[in-house]
Amino acid sequence: MSEVTKILLPEDRIPTSWYNVIPDLPGPMAPVIHPGTLQPVTPDDLLPLFPMGLIEQEVSSERWIKIPEQVLDIYRLWRPSPLFRARRLEKVLGTPAKIYYKYEGVSPAGSHKPNTAVPQAYYNKLAGTKRIASETGAGQWGSSIALACQMFGLECTVYMVKVSFNQKPYRKSMMQLWGANVIPSPSDQTDAGRAILEQHPDSNGSLGIAISEAVEDAVTHENTRYALGSVLNHVCLHQSVIGLEAKEQLALVGDYPDVVIGCHGGGSNFAGLAFPFVADKAAGKEVRLLAAEPQSCPTLTKGVYEFDYGDTAKMAPISRMYTLGHDFMPPGIHAGGLRYHGAAPLVSQLLDAGVIEAQAFGQTGCFEAAVQFTRAEGIIPAPESSHAIRAAVVEALKAKEEGRERTILFNLSGHGHVDMAAYDAYFSGALEDYSYPAEAIRESLAALPKIG
Amino acid sequence: MSEVTKILLPEDRIPTSWYNVIPDLPGPMAPVIHPGTLQPVTPDDLLPLFPMGLIEQEVSSERWIKIPEQVLDIYRLWRPSPLFRARRLEKVLGTPAKIYYKYEGVSPAGSHKPNTAVPQAYYNKLAGTKRIASETGAGQWGSSIALACQMFGLECTVYMVKVSFNQKPYRKSMMQLWGANVIPSPSDQTDAGRAILEQHPDSNGSLGIAISEAVEDAVTHENTRYALGSVLNHVCLHQSVIGLEAKEQLALVGDYPDVVIGCHGGGSNFAGLAFPFVADKAAGKEVRLLAAEPQSCPTLTKGVYEFDYGDTAKMAPISRMYTLGHDFMPPGIHAGGLRYHGAAPLVSQLLDAGVIEAQAFGQTGCFEAAVQFTRAEGIIPAPESSHAIRAAVVEALKAKEEGRERTILFNLSGHGHVDMAAYDAYFSGALEDYSYPAEAIRESLAALPKIG
Repeated sequence: MSEVTKILLPEDRIPTSWYNVIPDLPGPMAPVIHPGTLQPVTPDDLLPLFPMGLIEQEVSSERWIKIPEQVLDIYRLWRPSPLFRARRLEKVLGTPAKIYYKYEGVSPAGSHKPNTAVPQAYYNKLAGTKRIASETGAGQWGSSIALACQMFGLECTVYMVKVSFNQKPYRKSMMQLWGANVIPSPSDQTDAGRAILEQHPDSNGSLGIAISEAVEDAVTHENTRYALGSVLNHVCLHQSVIGLEAKEQLALVGDYPDVVIGCHGGGSNFAGLAFPFVADKAAGKEVRLLAAEPQSCPTLTKGVYEFDYGDTAKMAPISRMYTLGHDFMPPGIHAGGLRYHGAAPLVSQLLDAGVIEAQAFGQTGCFEAAVQFTRAEGIIPAPESSHAIRAAVVEALKAKEEGRERTILFNLSGHGHVDMAAYDAYFSGALEDYSYPAEAIRESLAALPKIG
Repeated sequence: MSEVTKILLPEDRIPTSWYNVIPDLPGPMAPVIHPGTLQPVTPDDLLPLFPMGLIEQEVSSERWIKIPEQVLDIYRLWRPSPLFRARRLEKVLGTPAKIYYKYEGVSPAGSHKPNTAVPQAYYNKLAGTKRIASETGAGQWGSSIALACQMFGLECTVYMVKVSFNQKPYRKSMMQLWGANVIPSPSDQTDAGRAILEQHPDSNGSLGIAISEAVEDAVTHENTRYALGSVLNHVCLHQSVIGLEAKEQLALVGDYPDVVIGCHGGGSNFAGLAFPFVADKAAGKEVRLLAAEPQSCPTLTKGVYEFDYGDTAKMAPISRMYTLGHDFMPPGIHAGGLRYHGAAPLVSQLLDAGVIEAQAFGQTGCFEAAVQFTRAEGIIPAPESSHAIRAAVVEALKAKEEGRERTILFNLSGHGHVDMAAYDAYFSGALEDYSYPAEAIRESLAALPKIG
């Protein structure tokens, strides 16, 4: 019997519709609140930021939404992505569990992010948008939106957190290669950036500032719109191709998971794999859906389910979500991404209702699991994905302890070829675990807006 | 009709035998000469360096050699690799030609090199080898042999050219993650390294020195053998999986190439795609087989077909091959890899017999083609692969000029995610073309050994 099993779908079995979890939610969605008026937003409020095609998806109650043919054309560059049975890792762990992983690192950008970047660029093109403004931290999202804009002939400006712009030149170069204009943030291009620079000329920037710059850029330039790589409903919708394919691939080998695991930052990575299983669960199927988040930014496990701003500068809409407070900053020693203060409202509502569960993991354990995985399976995981690996290993060892079979499925959302500095930091002993930042969370939670 | 076409083979259609071009050569192979005795080498001469399984393949006259099941198990991590029709690039070029590319960047190391690293590790494991010593320049081969050793539980030491060790930390980190011991070369671990350091304490190293260190390490340590990532017959044999799959994939869409293109450094990249077509050509089929090499290291187009040493230090066997002389050093401005002074003896013999052809390309044109390709097809090519892209673009434009259909197949041997510094250098205008280094070639050719 083969030691390695790769389960491929033929190109014509690529999903032709996205799965929308909204009709399978246990209750109505909370409204989204305008940051200026503190009243529920209307679709018109969102038009300066997003094209109508995406706004419609944001609120759609259709369970299946057709994937446009032009999006499928680009998806076919890397989709269907492979599903692997991690037989070599199972053997190393000595577990009776079967471990499967869906591998999204085969996309041109090396992560799952193009699954939503491509349709976002498409719907913008359709609406006559000429230029997209967006932001990026380490560059995974920025490189994906740059790629997608290039595919549809849109201009693209990416505000990249300055410390990453200077320290992580590879993803910056990838964005430029895909034709994007990459601006270190804070910049002198926006009021938001200039205000920061005036106070802190040497500011290293933050994701919150970069979001504010991109949003301002979009609303102050003609034919320009904004794009976000996670959190929003339409982003979770687009990522559902991951879970839809994985279900079909597991069915090909006659299997179904006991537990489905994705890492969690803003939520789209986890949602992409797990949401297509929510419908099954609603229909009575037993399956655990587990979001794996970092201990240093424990939104789902230590946050509150309240209304909060999407960004630090309070320019983005207010959503009901698990949040650590829009002022929360994860500790600097954290190397593994997943640093967002909030969570996708859809993930949050499902967690609140007990449909999904969440666990937080320290980074040294995550890197340890990533090294174990790499040496068994060959593929080098992105540091973000290592949280899902850690959770899968914990589940597999629990199965071993209990002496029972169990089928584990996790999302290997990206490769780590451009993240080797984080592995170097781990090997050199420079990384520490951070018992969760209780004081910082208490302080930032005090700044929540009062809604309703 | 879909704009992007990815042609996948199911996992069970992975080739189960390698194709050996030796029985399809137009004449007998030239002998390999011992660098010490200047007499033909015997298999026993090679045993300190290679296990018998690989030595047998080096001289085998069997057309088909079975791929061991344990090798197939690892191959299945990324094989069969996808074949793409570059419809978007065709449209940009406005060519009537059909352009297909075989994409080897899906391997865990991001290149085609694991196709041979894995069987090399396997046959060593089978022969009781405990440890492999090898060398690497920029790190593509080193990371692949590190991965393969990890898969079979072998120790691995890689002598990495010092300038790359210091300037290209990502592939060094990848090797370490896969468990290899990476030593900057020249080192104080070998006589060869110490001799260089004594004369030049600040030496940046060279591939020639690193080969000498690895060979010395292998022959002076128990249970240790040497591994080489290109040039040798068994390496070309293992890489034939690329071309075998591509032929089958083209057959699935009812196509056959007019021209098959691979970039050429040591030869295994080109041989991997092109050799399986040599048998067809011998049987009367019309197909051009084109090796694309850099103008700055024009082994096939400006070298001579003579006996020469495989390495600078004259420790490696002497082969009859196209060579620029073992002392030849390509100019420092060259960014695109493919810097070997010689060529695979099998490629050389086929070129000499007129079965294959070769063209040299300047690096700025290659990067220009790589950028055009990336913006059309999404995937970022390794700088080495860009030579094949350039050749494919030239062929496609020729087809346009002549107004006739033509089917072009090229090998996209690796992704460039770890090579973004070379793209930065191109965009910043730091790269130049180098009209071929005639004087340096004349000098180095004067140092050829006198054989027979």
